[in-house]
Amino acid sequence: MTKDTFYIPRLAIVGVGLIGGSLALALREAGAVGEVIGIGRGLANLEKALELGIVDRITQDAVAGTREADLVFLATPVCKLGEVAAAIIPHLKRGAVITDGGSVKAQVIAAIEPLLRPGVSFVPGHPIAGTEKSGAEAAFATLYHHRRCILTPTQNTESDALEMVERMWRTAGSEVVVMDAEKHDRILAAISHLPHMVAYSLVNAVGSYDRYEENILEYSAGGFRDFTRIASSDPSMWRDIALTNRAALLEMMERFEHFLAELKEDVRSGEGERLYEFFQRSKELRDNIL
Amino acid sequence: MTKDTFYIPRLAIVGVGLIGGSLALALREAGAVGEVIGIGRGLANLEKALELGIVDRITQDAVAGTREADLVFLATPVCKLGEVAAAIIPHLKRGAVITDGGSVKAQVIAAIEPLLRPGVSFVPGHPIAGTEKSGAEAAFATLYHHRRCILTPTQNTESDALEMVERMWRTAGSEVVVMDAEKHDRILAAISHLPHMVAYSLVNAVGSYDRYEENILEYSAGGFRDFTRIASSDPSMWRDIALTNRAALLEMMERFEHFLAELKEDVRSGEGERLYEFFQRSKELRDNIL
Repeated sequence: MTKDTFYIPRLAIVGVGLIGGSLALALREAGAVGEVIGIGRGLANLEKALELGIVDRITQDAVAGTREADLVFLATPVCKLGEVAAAIIPHLKRGAVITDGGSVKAQVIAAIEPLLRPGVSFVPGHPIAGTEKSGAEAAFATLYHHRRCILTPTQNTESDALEMVERMWRTAGSEVVVMDAEKHDRILAAISHLPHMVAYSLVNAVGSYDRYEENILEYSAGGFRDFTRIASSDPSMWRDIALTNRAALLEMMERFEHFLAELKEDVRSGEGERLYEFFQRSKELRDNIL
Repeated sequence: MTKDTFYIPRLAIVGVGLIGGSLALALREAGAVGEVIGIGRGLANLEKALELGIVDRITQDAVAGTREADLVFLATPVCKLGEVAAAIIPHLKRGAVITDGGSVKAQVIAAIEPLLRPGVSFVPGHPIAGTEKSGAEAAFATLYHHRRCILTPTQNTESDALEMVERMWRTAGSEVVVMDAEKHDRILAAISHLPHMVAYSLVNAVGSYDRYEENILEYSAGGFRDFTRIASSDPSMWRDIALTNRAALLEMMERFEHFLAELKEDVRSGEGERLYEFFQRSKELRDNIL
Protein backbone atom coordinates (compact mmCIF):
# COMPACT_ATOMS: atom_id res chain seq x y z
CA MET A 1 0.00 0.00 0.00
CA THR A 2 1.57 3.28 -1.06
CA LYS A 3 0.46 6.73 0.02
CA ASP A 4 -1.20 7.26 -3.34
CA THR A 5 -2.92 4.01 -4.08
CA PHE A 6 -5.14 2.53 -1.43
CA TYR A 7 -5.29 -1.24 -1.56
CA ILE A 8 -6.41 -3.92 0.90
CA PRO A 9 -5.12 -7.38 -0.12
CA ARG A 10 -7.70 -9.26 1.93
CA LEU A 11 -10.89 -7.78 3.36
CA ALA A 12 -13.27 -9.66 5.65
CA ILE A 13 -16.84 -8.41 5.99
CA VAL A 14 -18.78 -9.76 8.95
CA GLY A 15 -22.46 -9.18 8.09
CA VAL A 16 -22.92 -8.87 4.33
CA GLY A 17 -26.03 -6.72 4.26
CA LEU A 18 -26.70 -3.22 2.99
CA ILE A 19 -23.83 -1.65 4.97
CA GLY A 20 -21.19 -4.37 4.64
CA GLY A 21 -22.11 -5.33 1.08
CA SER A 22 -22.11 -1.74 -0.18
CA LEU A 23 -18.63 -1.13 1.24
CA ALA A 24 -17.32 -4.25 -0.54
CA LEU A 25 -18.90 -3.15 -3.83
CA ALA A 26 -17.52 0.39 -3.53
CA LEU A 27 -13.96 -0.83 -2.85
CA ARG A 28 -14.16 -3.38 -5.67
CA GLU A 29 -15.30 -0.71 -8.13
CA ALA A 30 -12.34 1.42 -7.05
CA GLY A 31 -9.98 -1.54 -7.56
CA ALA A 32 -8.95 -1.06 -3.93
CA VAL A 33 -9.37 -4.61 -2.72
CA GLY A 34 -7.95 -8.05 -3.48
CA GLU A 35 -10.01 -10.83 -2.01
CA VAL A 36 -13.28 -10.18 -0.16
CA ILE A 37 -14.46 -12.78 2.34
CA GLY A 38 -18.12 -12.65 3.37
CA ILE A 39 -18.99 -13.91 6.84
CA GLY A 40 -22.47 -14.26 8.33
CA ARG A 41 -24.93 -16.50 10.05
CA GLY A 42 -27.52 -16.84 7.31
CA LEU A 43 -26.33 -19.08 4.49
CA ALA A 44 -28.97 -17.92 2.02
CA ASN A 45 -27.85 -14.30 2.32
CA LEU A 46 -24.17 -15.28 1.97
CA GLU A 47 -24.92 -17.30 -1.16
CA LYS A 48 -26.80 -14.34 -2.57
CA ALA A 49 -23.78 -12.09 -1.85
CA LEU A 50 -21.52 -14.55 -3.65
CA GLU A 51 -23.90 -14.79 -6.61
CA LEU A 52 -24.08 -10.99 -6.85
CA GLY A 53 -20.28 -10.74 -6.90
CA ILE A 54 -20.16 -8.77 -3.66
CA VAL A 55 -17.75 -11.28 -2.09
CA ASP A 56 -15.29 -13.87 -3.47
CA ARG A 57 -15.69 -16.46 -0.77
CA ILE A 58 -18.15 -17.11 2.05
CA THR A 59 -18.13 -18.81 5.41
CA GLN A 60 -20.33 -19.01 8.49
CA ASP A 61 -17.20 -19.41 10.65
CA ALA A 62 -16.09 -15.96 11.76
CA VAL A 63 -12.72 -17.17 13.07
CA ALA A 64 -11.80 -18.97 9.85
CA GLY A 65 -13.08 -16.14 7.67
CA THR A 66 -11.10 -13.38 9.39
CA ARG A 67 -7.90 -15.22 10.31
CA GLU A 68 -5.90 -14.04 7.28
CA ALA A 69 -7.61 -10.70 6.75
CA ASP A 70 -5.73 -7.39 6.62
CA LEU A 71 -8.90 -5.45 7.41
CA VAL A 72 -12.03 -6.71 9.12
CA PHE A 73 -15.24 -4.70 8.79
CA LEU A 74 -17.82 -5.57 11.43
CA ALA A 75 -21.27 -4.80 10.08
CA THR A 76 -23.43 -6.86 12.39
CA PRO A 77 -26.20 -5.46 14.60
CA VAL A 78 -24.64 -3.21 17.22
CA CYS A 79 -25.42 -5.58 20.13
CA LYS A 80 -23.48 -8.40 18.45
CA LEU A 81 -20.25 -6.48 17.82
CA GLY A 82 -18.60 -7.33 21.15
CA GLU A 83 -19.42 -11.00 20.82
CA VAL A 84 -17.97 -11.22 17.29
CA ALA A 85 -14.89 -9.25 18.29
CA ALA A 86 -14.28 -11.55 21.27
CA ALA A 87 -14.42 -14.59 19.02
CA ILE A 88 -12.12 -13.36 16.24
CA ILE A 89 -9.48 -11.19 17.99
CA PRO A 90 -7.39 -14.05 19.44
CA HIS A 91 -6.98 -15.52 15.92
CA LEU A 92 -6.35 -12.44 13.78
CA LYS A 93 -2.96 -12.08 12.11
CA ARG A 94 -0.41 -9.53 13.35
CA GLY A 95 -1.11 -6.09 11.91
CA ALA A 96 -4.80 -6.71 11.31
CA VAL A 97 -7.11 -3.74 11.65
CA ILE A 98 -10.73 -4.01 12.78
CA THR A 99 -13.31 -1.34 12.11
CA ASP A 100 -17.07 -1.31 12.50
CA GLY A 101 -20.19 0.43 11.24
CA GLY A 102 -22.21 0.55 14.44
CA SER A 103 -24.68 3.43 14.95
CA VAL A 104 -23.53 3.87 18.55
CA LYS A 105 -19.89 4.33 19.50
CA ALA A 106 -19.17 4.65 23.25
CA GLN A 107 -20.78 1.32 24.09
CA VAL A 108 -19.05 -0.45 21.17
CA ILE A 109 -15.66 0.92 22.23
CA ALA A 110 -16.31 -0.23 25.81
CA ALA A 111 -17.13 -3.70 24.51
CA ILE A 112 -14.23 -4.10 22.06
CA GLU A 113 -11.21 -2.19 23.38
CA PRO A 114 -10.61 -4.46 26.41
CA LEU A 115 -10.40 -7.42 24.01
CA LEU A 116 -7.54 -6.02 21.91
CA ARG A 117 -4.04 -7.43 22.00
CA PRO A 118 -0.73 -6.14 20.59
CA GLY A 119 -0.70 -6.18 16.80
CA VAL A 120 -4.49 -5.88 16.43
CA SER A 121 -5.98 -2.40 16.09
CA PHE A 122 -9.53 -1.16 16.32
CA VAL A 123 -10.90 1.97 14.65
CA PRO A 124 -14.49 2.69 15.70
CA GLY A 125 -16.55 4.06 12.82
CA HIS A 126 -20.02 4.92 11.61
CA PRO A 127 -20.90 5.61 7.99
CA ILE A 128 -24.01 7.82 8.02
CA ALA A 129 -25.90 6.19 5.20
CA GLY A 130 -28.65 3.68 4.76
CA THR A 131 -32.02 2.92 3.30
CA GLU A 132 -34.99 1.04 4.77
CA LYS A 133 -33.88 -2.05 2.86
CA SER A 134 -31.59 -4.70 4.24
CA GLY A 135 -29.69 -7.81 3.14
CA ALA A 136 -27.04 -8.39 0.47
CA GLU A 137 -29.55 -7.73 -2.30
CA ALA A 138 -29.99 -4.15 -1.04
CA ALA A 139 -26.26 -3.33 -1.35
CA PHE A 140 -25.02 -0.93 -4.01
CA ALA A 141 -21.62 0.61 -4.78
CA THR A 142 -22.62 4.25 -4.45
CA LEU A 143 -24.37 4.09 -1.05
CA TYR A 144 -21.53 6.04 0.57
CA HIS A 145 -20.98 8.64 -2.13
CA HIS A 146 -20.96 12.13 -0.60
CA ARG A 147 -22.12 10.75 2.75
CA ARG A 148 -20.29 11.48 5.96
CA CYS A 149 -18.47 8.73 7.77
CA ILE A 150 -17.64 9.49 11.40
CA LEU A 151 -14.59 7.83 12.96
CA THR A 152 -14.21 8.00 16.74
CA PRO A 153 -10.64 6.97 17.65
CA THR A 154 -9.68 6.75 21.31
CA GLN A 155 -6.32 7.39 22.95
CA ASN A 156 -5.53 3.74 22.23
CA THR A 157 -6.16 3.89 18.48
CA GLU A 158 -2.93 3.59 16.44
CA SER A 159 -2.54 6.42 13.94
CA ASP A 160 -1.59 4.06 11.08
CA ALA A 161 -4.78 2.09 11.59
CA LEU A 162 -6.83 5.28 11.73
CA GLU A 163 -5.24 6.49 8.49
CA MET A 164 -5.97 3.18 6.77
CA VAL A 165 -9.66 3.28 7.71
CA GLU A 166 -9.92 6.95 6.75
CA ARG A 167 -8.50 6.17 3.33
CA MET A 168 -10.84 3.22 2.94
CA TRP A 169 -13.93 5.36 3.50
CA ARG A 170 -12.66 8.12 1.23
CA THR A 171 -12.07 5.50 -1.45
CA ALA A 172 -15.68 4.40 -0.98
CA GLY A 173 -16.78 7.98 -1.66
CA SER A 174 -17.37 9.26 1.88
CA GLU A 175 -16.36 12.46 3.57
CA VAL A 176 -14.57 11.36 6.75
CA VAL A 177 -15.06 13.29 9.99
CA VAL A 178 -13.13 12.46 13.16
CA MET A 179 -14.60 13.21 16.59
CA ASP A 180 -14.82 11.64 20.04
CA ALA A 181 -17.35 8.91 20.71
CA GLU A 182 -19.39 10.91 23.19
CA LYS A 183 -19.93 13.70 20.67
CA HIS A 184 -20.86 11.18 17.98
CA ASP A 185 -23.40 9.55 20.25
CA ARG A 186 -25.02 12.85 21.16
CA ILE A 187 -25.19 14.07 17.56
CA LEU A 188 -26.66 10.79 16.35
CA ALA A 189 -29.14 10.77 19.25
CA ALA A 190 -30.29 14.19 18.05
CA ILE A 191 -30.44 13.75 14.28
CA SER A 192 -31.32 10.07 14.02
CA HIS A 193 -32.22 8.22 17.22
CA LEU A 194 -34.63 10.85 18.58
CA PRO A 195 -36.49 11.21 15.24
CA HIS A 196 -36.99 7.45 15.15
CA MET A 197 -38.41 7.42 18.69
CA VAL A 198 -40.72 10.29 17.74
CA ALA A 199 -41.89 8.58 14.56
CA TYR A 200 -42.54 5.27 16.31
CA SER A 201 -44.49 7.08 19.07
CA LEU A 202 -46.49 9.11 16.57
CA VAL A 203 -47.58 6.11 14.53
CA ASN A 204 -48.55 4.22 17.67
CA ALA A 205 -50.44 7.20 19.10
CA VAL A 206 -52.38 7.86 15.89
CA GLY A 207 -52.75 4.26 14.74
CA SER A 208 -54.28 3.07 18.01
CA TYR A 209 -56.79 5.93 18.23
CA ASP A 210 -60.04 3.99 18.27
CA ARG A 211 -62.77 6.56 18.87
CA TYR A 212 -64.12 5.76 15.41
CA GLU A 213 -64.75 2.36 13.96
CA GLU A 214 -62.75 2.92 10.81
CA ASN A 215 -58.96 3.00 10.63
CA ILE A 216 -58.19 6.72 10.58
CA LEU A 217 -54.74 6.09 9.06
CA GLU A 218 -56.60 5.52 5.80
CA TYR A 219 -57.29 9.25 5.65
CA SER A 220 -53.60 10.05 5.75
CA ALA A 221 -52.21 11.68 2.64
CA GLY A 222 -48.62 11.95 1.42
CA GLY A 223 -47.42 14.12 4.32
CA PHE A 224 -48.14 11.53 7.00
CA ARG A 225 -46.70 8.74 4.92
CA ASP A 226 -43.43 10.53 4.22
CA PHE A 227 -43.22 11.74 7.78
CA THR A 228 -43.62 8.28 9.27
CA ARG A 229 -41.56 6.28 6.77
CA ILE A 230 -38.79 5.79 9.33
CA ALA A 231 -41.32 4.14 11.66
CA SER A 232 -41.05 1.14 9.33
CA SER A 233 -37.40 0.58 10.22
CA ASP A 234 -36.19 -2.70 11.68
CA PRO A 235 -37.49 -3.06 15.28
CA SER A 236 -34.51 -5.19 16.46
CA MET A 237 -31.99 -2.67 15.20
CA TRP A 238 -33.77 0.18 16.94
CA ARG A 239 -34.20 -1.76 20.15
CA ASP A 240 -30.42 -2.27 20.16
CA ILE A 241 -29.71 1.40 19.44
CA ALA A 242 -32.12 2.52 22.18
CA LEU A 243 -30.44 0.15 24.63
CA THR A 244 -26.86 1.09 23.73
CA ASN A 245 -27.18 4.87 23.43
CA ARG A 246 -29.48 5.28 26.38
CA ALA A 247 -28.01 8.33 28.12
CA ALA A 248 -27.71 10.53 25.03
CA LEU A 249 -31.09 9.40 23.76
CA LEU A 250 -32.84 10.16 27.05
CA GLU A 251 -31.24 13.61 27.09
CA MET A 252 -32.59 14.33 23.60
CA MET A 253 -36.03 12.86 24.31
CA GLU A 254 -36.33 15.16 27.32
CA ARG A 255 -35.18 18.10 25.25
CA PHE A 256 -37.83 17.32 22.66
CA GLU A 257 -40.53 16.90 25.33
CA HIS A 258 -39.67 20.34 26.64
CA PHE A 259 -40.15 21.95 23.20
CA LEU A 260 -43.39 20.08 22.58
CA ALA A 261 -44.74 21.07 26.02
CA GLU A 262 -43.91 24.71 25.29
CA LEU A 263 -45.76 24.48 22.00
CA LYS A 264 -48.72 22.79 23.65
CA GLU A 265 -49.01 25.60 26.19
CA ASP A 266 -49.04 28.15 23.37
CA VAL A 267 -51.77 26.19 21.59
CA ARG A 268 -53.76 25.95 24.82
CA SER A 269 -53.53 29.66 25.57
CA GLY A 270 -54.02 30.68 21.92
CA GLU A 271 -50.71 32.57 21.69
CA GLY A 272 -50.84 33.31 17.95
CA GLU A 273 -47.70 35.41 17.88
CA ARG A 274 -45.64 32.81 19.75
CA LEU A 275 -47.01 29.99 17.59
CA TYR A 276 -46.01 31.85 14.46
CA GLU A 277 -42.49 32.42 15.80
CA PHE A 278 -42.13 28.77 16.80
CA PHE A 279 -43.18 27.55 13.34
CA GLN A 280 -41.13 30.21 11.54
CA ARG A 281 -37.96 29.34 13.50
CA SER A 282 -38.41 25.69 12.61
CA LYS A 283 -39.02 26.48 8.96
CA GLU A 284 -35.81 28.52 8.79
CA LEU A 285 -33.76 25.77 10.44
CA ARG A 286 -35.26 23.17 8.13
CA ASP A 287 -34.88 25.22 4.96
CA ASN A 288 -31.18 25.69 5.76
CA ILE A 289 -30.46 21.99 5.37
CA LEU A 290 -32.25 21.58 2.04
CA MET B 1 -77.31 21.04 -14.95
CA THR B 2 -78.68 17.54 -15.52
CA LYS B 3 -78.11 14.53 -13.28
CA ASP B 4 -75.59 13.17 -15.73
CA THR B 5 -73.56 16.16 -16.75
CA PHE B 6 -72.16 18.33 -14.04
CA TYR B 7 -71.78 21.94 -15.09
CA ILE B 8 -71.29 25.22 -13.20
CA PRO B 9 -72.04 28.23 -15.41
CA ARG B 10 -70.10 30.69 -13.25
CA LEU B 11 -67.57 29.70 -10.60
CA ALA B 12 -65.89 32.21 -8.30
CA ILE B 13 -62.65 31.20 -6.61
CA VAL B 14 -61.60 33.34 -3.66
CA GLY B 15 -57.88 32.69 -3.20
CA VAL B 16 -56.34 31.42 -6.44
CA GLY B 17 -53.45 29.41 -4.99
CA LEU B 18 -52.60 25.72 -5.06
CA ILE B 19 -56.00 24.64 -3.67
CA GLY B 20 -58.29 27.10 -5.48
CA GLY B 21 -56.32 27.11 -8.73
CA SER B 22 -56.13 23.32 -8.94
CA LEU B 23 -59.90 22.99 -8.52
CA ALA B 24 -60.45 25.49 -11.36
CA LEU B 25 -58.03 23.60 -13.62
CA ALA B 26 -59.62 20.23 -12.84
CA LEU B 27 -63.15 21.47 -13.58
CA ARG B 28 -61.97 23.18 -16.76
CA GLU B 29 -60.31 20.00 -17.99
CA ALA B 30 -63.55 18.14 -17.34
CA GLY B 31 -65.52 20.78 -19.27
CA ALA B 32 -67.59 21.25 -16.14
CA VAL B 33 -67.37 25.00 -15.81
CA GLY B 34 -68.34 28.07 -17.84
CA GLU B 35 -66.67 31.21 -16.59
CA VAL B 36 -64.13 31.18 -13.76
CA ILE B 37 -63.60 34.38 -11.79
CA GLY B 38 -60.44 34.67 -9.73
CA ILE B 39 -60.56 36.81 -6.61
CA GLY B 40 -57.68 37.64 -4.31
CA ARG B 41 -55.73 40.35 -2.58
CA GLY B 42 -52.41 40.00 -4.42
CA LEU B 43 -52.60 41.40 -7.94
CA ALA B 44 -49.40 39.71 -9.12
CA ASN B 45 -50.76 36.26 -8.22
CA LEU B 46 -54.11 37.00 -9.89
CA GLU B 47 -52.36 38.14 -13.08
CA LYS B 48 -50.30 34.97 -13.06
CA ALA B 49 -53.51 32.91 -12.69
CA LEU B 50 -55.00 34.72 -15.67
CA GLU B 51 -51.84 34.24 -17.73
CA LEU B 52 -51.79 30.51 -16.90
CA GLY B 53 -55.42 30.14 -18.01
CA ILE B 54 -56.59 29.12 -14.55
CA VAL B 55 -59.23 31.87 -14.50
CA ASP B 56 -61.02 33.91 -17.16
CA ARG B 57 -61.32 37.14 -15.25
CA ILE B 58 -59.78 38.59 -12.10
CA THR B 59 -60.71 41.13 -9.45
CA GLN B 60 -59.52 42.20 -6.04
CA ASP B 61 -63.11 43.05 -5.09
CA ALA B 62 -64.68 39.98 -3.50
CA VAL B 63 -68.20 41.40 -3.62
CA ALA B 64 -68.05 42.25 -7.33
CA GLY B 65 -66.33 38.98 -8.19
CA THR B 66 -68.87 36.72 -6.48
CA ARG B 67 -72.11 38.65 -7.10
CA GLU B 68 -73.17 36.64 -10.16
CA ALA B 69 -71.55 33.32 -9.25
CA ASP B 70 -73.46 30.06 -9.06
CA LEU B 71 -70.80 28.49 -6.89
CA VAL B 72 -68.24 30.24 -4.70
CA PHE B 73 -65.18 28.32 -3.54
CA LEU B 74 -63.46 29.95 -0.57
CA ALA B 75 -59.80 28.94 -0.57
CA THR B 76 -58.34 31.62 1.65
CA PRO B 77 -56.43 30.93 4.88
CA VAL B 78 -58.81 29.41 7.42
CA CYS B 79 -58.82 32.49 9.69
CA LYS B 80 -60.02 34.69 6.81
CA LEU B 81 -63.00 32.57 5.79
CA GLY B 82 -65.52 34.22 8.13
CA GLU B 83 -64.47 37.71 7.10
CA VAL B 84 -64.77 36.94 3.37
CA ALA B 85 -68.12 35.22 3.88
CA ALA B 86 -69.46 38.20 5.83
CA ALA B 87 -68.50 40.54 3.00
CA ILE B 88 -69.95 38.55 0.10
CA ILE B 89 -73.07 36.84 1.48
CA PRO B 90 -75.35 39.92 1.45
CA HIS B 91 -74.63 40.38 -2.28
CA LEU B 92 -74.77 36.82 -3.64
CA LYS B 93 -77.51 35.94 -6.08
CA ARG B 94 -80.44 33.74 -5.06
CA GLY B 95 -79.52 30.04 -5.24
CA ALA B 96 -75.80 30.61 -4.85
CA VAL B 97 -73.83 27.89 -3.08
CA ILE B 98 -70.71 28.57 -1.03
CA THR B 99 -68.19 25.90 -0.17
CA ASP B 100 -64.71 26.09 1.31
CA GLY B 101 -61.46 24.18 1.53
CA GLY B 102 -60.47 24.97 5.11
CA SER B 103 -58.43 22.41 7.08
CA VAL B 104 -60.61 22.89 10.15
CA LYS B 105 -64.39 22.58 10.05
CA ALA B 106 -66.20 23.23 13.37
CA GLN B 107 -64.77 26.72 13.74
CA VAL B 108 -65.44 27.60 10.09
CA ILE B 109 -69.06 26.46 10.40
CA ALA B 110 -69.45 28.53 13.58
CA ALA B 111 -68.09 31.56 11.72
CA ILE B 112 -70.10 31.22 8.48
CA GLU B 113 -73.47 29.63 9.31
CA PRO B 114 -74.83 32.59 11.31
CA LEU B 115 -74.18 34.83 8.27
CA LEU B 116 -76.34 32.82 5.86
CA ARG B 117 -79.66 34.11 4.52
CA PRO B 118 -82.45 32.37 2.59
CA GLY B 119 -81.33 31.41 -0.91
CA VAL B 120 -77.63 31.14 -0.04
CA SER B 121 -76.30 27.75 1.02
CA PHE B 122 -73.03 26.72 2.60
CA VAL B 123 -71.40 23.30 2.29
CA PRO B 124 -68.31 22.99 4.54
CA GLY B 125 -65.56 20.97 2.87
CA HIS B 126 -61.93 19.94 3.01
CA PRO B 127 -60.06 18.34 0.13
CA ILE B 128 -57.19 16.33 1.67
CA ALA B 129 -54.50 17.21 -0.80
CA GLY B 130 -51.64 19.62 -1.05
CA THR B 131 -47.94 20.08 -1.58
CA GLU B 132 -45.45 22.37 0.16
CA LYS B 133 -45.80 24.80 -2.74
CA SER B 134 -48.26 27.64 -2.84
CA GLY B 135 -49.58 30.30 -5.23
CA ALA B 136 -51.28 30.06 -8.63
CA GLU B 137 -48.11 28.77 -10.25
CA ALA B 138 -48.22 25.67 -8.03
CA ALA B 139 -51.74 24.68 -9.20
CA PHE B 140 -52.24 21.61 -11.39
CA ALA B 141 -55.33 19.83 -12.71
CA THR B 142 -54.66 16.42 -11.13
CA LEU B 143 -54.00 17.54 -7.55
CA TYR B 144 -57.28 16.00 -6.37
CA HIS B 145 -57.14 12.76 -8.33
CA HIS B 146 -57.78 9.80 -6.03
CA ARG B 147 -57.61 12.04 -2.97
CA ARG B 148 -60.33 12.13 -0.38
CA CYS B 149 -62.46 15.22 0.02
CA ILE B 150 -64.37 15.39 3.29
CA LEU B 151 -67.65 17.31 3.38
CA THR B 152 -69.15 18.13 6.77
CA PRO B 153 -72.76 19.24 6.27
CA THR B 154 -74.75 20.41 9.28
CA GLN B 155 -78.49 20.12 9.97
CA ASN B 156 -78.85 23.42 8.10
CA THR B 157 -77.14 22.30 4.90
CA GLU B 158 -79.58 21.96 1.97
CA SER B 159 -79.38 18.56 0.31
CA ASP B 160 -79.30 20.06 -3.22
CA ALA B 161 -76.31 22.18 -2.30
CA LEU B 162 -74.55 19.20 -0.74
CA GLU B 163 -75.17 17.14 -3.85
CA MET B 164 -73.82 19.89 -6.08
CA VAL B 165 -70.58 20.16 -4.10
CA GLU B 166 -70.22 16.37 -3.94
CA ARG B 167 -70.54 16.18 -7.70
CA MET B 168 -68.04 19.00 -8.13
CA TRP B 169 -65.36 17.18 -6.14
CA ARG B 170 -66.05 13.88 -7.88
CA THR B 171 -65.70 15.67 -11.20
CA ALA B 172 -62.32 16.96 -9.98
CA GLY B 173 -61.26 13.37 -9.36
CA SER B 174 -61.80 13.10 -5.60
CA GLU B 175 -63.42 10.42 -3.51
CA VAL B 176 -66.01 12.27 -1.40
CA VAL B 177 -66.59 11.27 2.22
CA VAL B 178 -69.33 12.86 4.34
CA MET B 179 -68.99 13.06 8.13
CA ASP B 180 -69.73 15.50 10.93
CA ALA B 181 -67.38 18.39 11.60
CA GLU B 182 -66.26 17.17 15.01
CA LYS B 183 -65.14 13.84 13.59
CA HIS B 184 -63.34 15.60 10.74
CA ASP B 185 -61.50 17.86 13.16
CA ARG B 186 -60.38 14.96 15.35
CA ILE B 187 -59.22 12.85 12.42
CA LEU B 188 -57.29 15.74 10.90
CA ALA B 189 -55.80 16.61 14.29
CA ALA B 190 -54.50 13.05 14.44
CA ILE B 191 -53.20 12.48 10.92
CA SER B 192 -52.13 15.99 9.97
CA HIS B 193 -52.14 18.64 12.69
CA LEU B 194 -50.35 16.57 15.34
CA PRO B 195 -47.60 15.41 12.93
CA HIS B 196 -46.93 19.04 12.02
CA MET B 197 -46.64 20.05 15.69
CA VAL B 198 -44.28 17.13 16.25
CA ALA B 199 -42.14 17.99 13.23
CA TYR B 200 -41.89 21.66 14.18
CA SER B 201 -40.94 20.73 17.75
CA LEU B 202 -38.39 18.20 16.59
CA VAL B 203 -36.60 20.60 14.26
CA ASN B 204 -36.54 23.29 16.94
CA ALA B 205 -35.29 20.87 19.60
CA VAL B 206 -32.51 19.48 17.41
CA GLY B 207 -31.66 22.65 15.51
CA SER B 208 -31.16 24.73 18.65
CA TYR B 209 -28.95 22.13 20.36
CA ASP B 210 -25.81 24.16 20.86
CA ARG B 211 -23.50 21.98 22.91
CA TYR B 212 -21.12 21.89 19.92
CA GLU B 213 -19.98 24.83 17.86
CA GLU B 214 -20.96 23.38 14.53
CA ASN B 215 -24.53 23.08 13.26
CA ILE B 216 -25.38 19.45 13.97
CA LEU B 217 -28.19 19.50 11.39
CA GLU B 218 -25.43 19.27 8.80
CA TYR B 219 -24.88 15.67 9.84
CA SER B 220 -28.45 14.76 9.04
CA ALA B 221 -28.93 12.30 6.21
CA GLY B 222 -31.99 11.52 4.11
CA GLY B 223 -34.08 10.15 6.98
CA PHE B 224 -34.09 13.38 8.97
CA ARG B 225 -34.72 15.47 5.87
CA ASP B 226 -37.72 13.43 4.76
CA PHE B 227 -39.03 13.21 8.29
CA THR B 228 -38.90 16.96 8.83
CA ARG B 229 -40.01 18.14 5.39
CA ILE B 230 -43.41 19.18 6.78
CA ALA B 231 -41.63 21.49 9.24
CA SER B 232 -41.06 23.75 6.23
CA SER B 233 -44.78 24.38 5.81
CA ASP B 234 -46.22 27.89 5.94
CA PRO B 235 -46.05 29.22 9.53
CA SER B 236 -49.14 31.47 9.17
CA MET B 237 -51.28 28.63 7.92
CA TRP B 238 -50.22 26.39 10.77
CA ARG B 239 -50.68 29.12 13.35
CA ASP B 240 -54.27 29.46 12.08
CA ILE B 241 -54.89 25.71 12.18
CA ALA B 242 -53.46 25.44 15.71
CA LEU B 243 -55.69 28.31 16.84
CA THR B 244 -58.87 27.05 15.18
CA ASN B 245 -58.66 23.32 15.99
CA ARG B 246 -57.36 23.79 19.50
CA ALA B 247 -59.41 21.25 21.46
CA ALA B 248 -58.89 18.32 19.11
CA LEU B 249 -55.22 19.20 18.65
CA LEU B 250 -54.57 19.38 22.41
CA GLU B 251 -56.26 16.01 22.86
CA MET B 252 -53.96 14.47 20.25
CA MET B 253 -50.82 16.20 21.56
CA GLU B 254 -51.55 14.77 25.00
CA ARG B 255 -52.14 11.35 23.54
CA PHE B 256 -48.80 11.52 21.73
CA GLU B 257 -47.02 12.73 24.89
CA HIS B 258 -48.37 9.73 26.73
CA PHE B 259 -46.94 7.29 24.15
CA LEU B 260 -43.59 9.08 24.06
CA ALA B 261 -43.37 9.07 27.86
CA GLU B 262 -44.08 5.33 27.92
CA LEU B 263 -41.32 4.76 25.39
CA LYS B 264 -38.92 6.95 27.35
CA GLU B 265 -39.53 4.92 30.48
CA ASP B 266 -38.76 1.73 28.60
CA VAL B 267 -35.53 3.26 27.26
CA ARG B 268 -34.60 4.41 30.76
CA SER B 269 -35.18 1.03 32.35
CA GLY B 270 -33.67 -0.88 29.41
CA GLU B 271 -36.82 -2.91 28.70
CA GLY B 272 -35.62 -4.59 25.49
CA GLU B 273 -38.67 -6.76 25.04
CA ARG B 274 -41.08 -3.86 25.47
CA LEU B 275 -39.02 -1.64 23.15
CA TYR B 276 -39.11 -4.31 20.46
CA GLU B 277 -42.89 -4.66 20.80
CA PHE B 278 -43.40 -0.89 20.65
CA PHE B 279 -41.31 -0.57 17.48
CA GLN B 280 -42.83 -3.69 15.91
CA ARG B 281 -46.40 -2.47 16.54
CA SER B 282 -45.56 0.84 14.90
CA LYS B 283 -43.92 -0.86 11.93
CA GLU B 284 -47.01 -2.99 11.35
CA LEU B 285 -49.37 0.00 11.54
CA ARG B 286 -47.15 1.97 9.17
CA ASP B 287 -46.65 -0.86 6.69
CA ASN B 288 -50.42 -1.26 6.47
CA ILE B 289 -50.87 2.18 4.92
CA LEU B 290 -48.16 1.76 2.27
